[in-house]
Amino acid sequence: MIDLHFAATPNGWKVTIALEELGLPYHVVPVNIGAGEQFAPDFLAISPNNRIPAIVDHAPADGGAAVSVFESGAILLYLAQKTGRLMPADLRGRVHVTEWLMWQMGGLGPMLGQNGHFRLYAPDRIAYATDRYAREADRLYGVLDRQLARTGAFVAGAAFSIADIACFPWIITHKAQGIDMGAFPHVARWFADLRQRPAVKAGTAVGRMARPDEIGEDAKRVMMGIERK
Amino acid sequence: MIDLHFAATPNGWKVTIALEELGLPYHVVPVNIGAGEQFAPDFLAISPNNRIPAIVDHAPADGGAAVSVFESGAILLYLAQKTGRLMPADLRGRVHVTEWLMWQMGGLGPMLGQNGHFRLYAPDRIAYATDRYAREADRLYGVLDRQLARTGAFVAGAAFSIADIACFPWIITHKAQGIDMGAFPHVARWFADLRQRPAVKAGTAVGRMARPDEIGEDAKRVMMGIERK
Repeated sequence: MIDLHFAATPNGWKVTIALEELGLPYHVVPVNIGAGEQFAPDFLAISPNNRIPAIVDHAPADGGAAVSVFESGAILLYLAQKTGRLMPADLRGRVHVTEWLMWQMGGLGPMLGQNGHFRLYAPDRIAYATDRYAREADRLYGVLDRQLARTGAFVAGAAFSIADIACFPWIITHKAQGIDMGAFPHVARWFADLRQRPAVKAGTAVGRMARPDEIGEDAKRVMMGIERK
Repeated sequence: MIDLHFAATPNGWKVTIALEELGLPYHVVPVNIGAGEQFAPDFLAISPNNRIPAIVDHAPADGGAAVSVFESGAILLYLAQKTGRLMPADLRGRVHVTEWLMWQMGGLGPMLGQNGHFRLYAPDRIAYATDRYAREADRLYGVLDRQLARTGAFVAGAAFSIADIACFPWIITHKAQGIDMGAFPHVARWFADLRQRPAVKAGTAVGRMARPDEIGEDAKRVMMGIERK
């Protein structure tokens, strides 16, 4: 059994989607970000950055004591390595998945976080900052669109992988981010396809979301930068 | 031989330090960010996000054609896997290195990038934005300080790893970031130790830096957010 310390945010949904795709049993431990539960000492012991998601795997592959993992990107790599799935076995396939996973972790996620913050949360509209992050959000959508045009299938190539799982929950936020999806037809095609996957539906339903295009309150808080403060 | 597409920036130095630590022969291909060389079509073919660093490994482990890798975090994982070094072999050790590598990629790097941008580059001082990122930079230094206090040695535990290599070049920028190092004694101890490593000295000398605490012009441009625009 895996305990998932979770809030209904894009980074949280990365892990629910992966666990659903892999069919691994898991137990959701809600972390109420609004109430500051991410600062509790027991949570800090498994997530020293005070962020969700984090997991505790009570049956790790080495047969030893429970293993905890924080950072959504590290959790996705851990689950792929544990199961030998959602990541190709060959060197080149692994390189592509790792590149795009890192691109999501270092670019798409943090920059959409800032865009959401200055668009929706910051008490005043600061034109310089909203322009800066709107441009970067558009640029990143353009990079993803060209990549999906090249592969004609998934983010890192012909096979669905943890790179898709990392990107998808952030693309759910496209309307709130002010993105014109019509300008990114390959992203739109991929997004529509992924929304039909049963595991994606089940994963994004965790945390009381009615539909994957509705953003829950906790997700709004993250997008609006509270999680990143 | 490995070709390294490089500019003298924190993300560029991650790779020179790793290559020096591993003793792998490499050829530096300078990418003049100021002149927009990162937008050239041949560079885009290996780095679809138009960012340095990227590598081309002409002797990959599978014996096939050259392999290119973009995103500094993906390059570090690739080099660790290629050599079986700078990353423990056991499951728990790998988890710790991956967690802190992802923390650097998703938090420390992007947020210090924003802090540098609003402190140094943005045409006007915007108090809301400078406060936001100064707070986040301090918070992240605090997380790193507590982790280094726990391990008493390196970022991910008792052994030097790619997690240290990912963090170190960003900590070089501490003065320009407005960080009071006196408030983070464990970071200060680790930083002073790492600066003495021959491979760290050699890696950070690439790109005409005289000393690791001097920031080159290209690095300033990145810190000031030009790379991230």
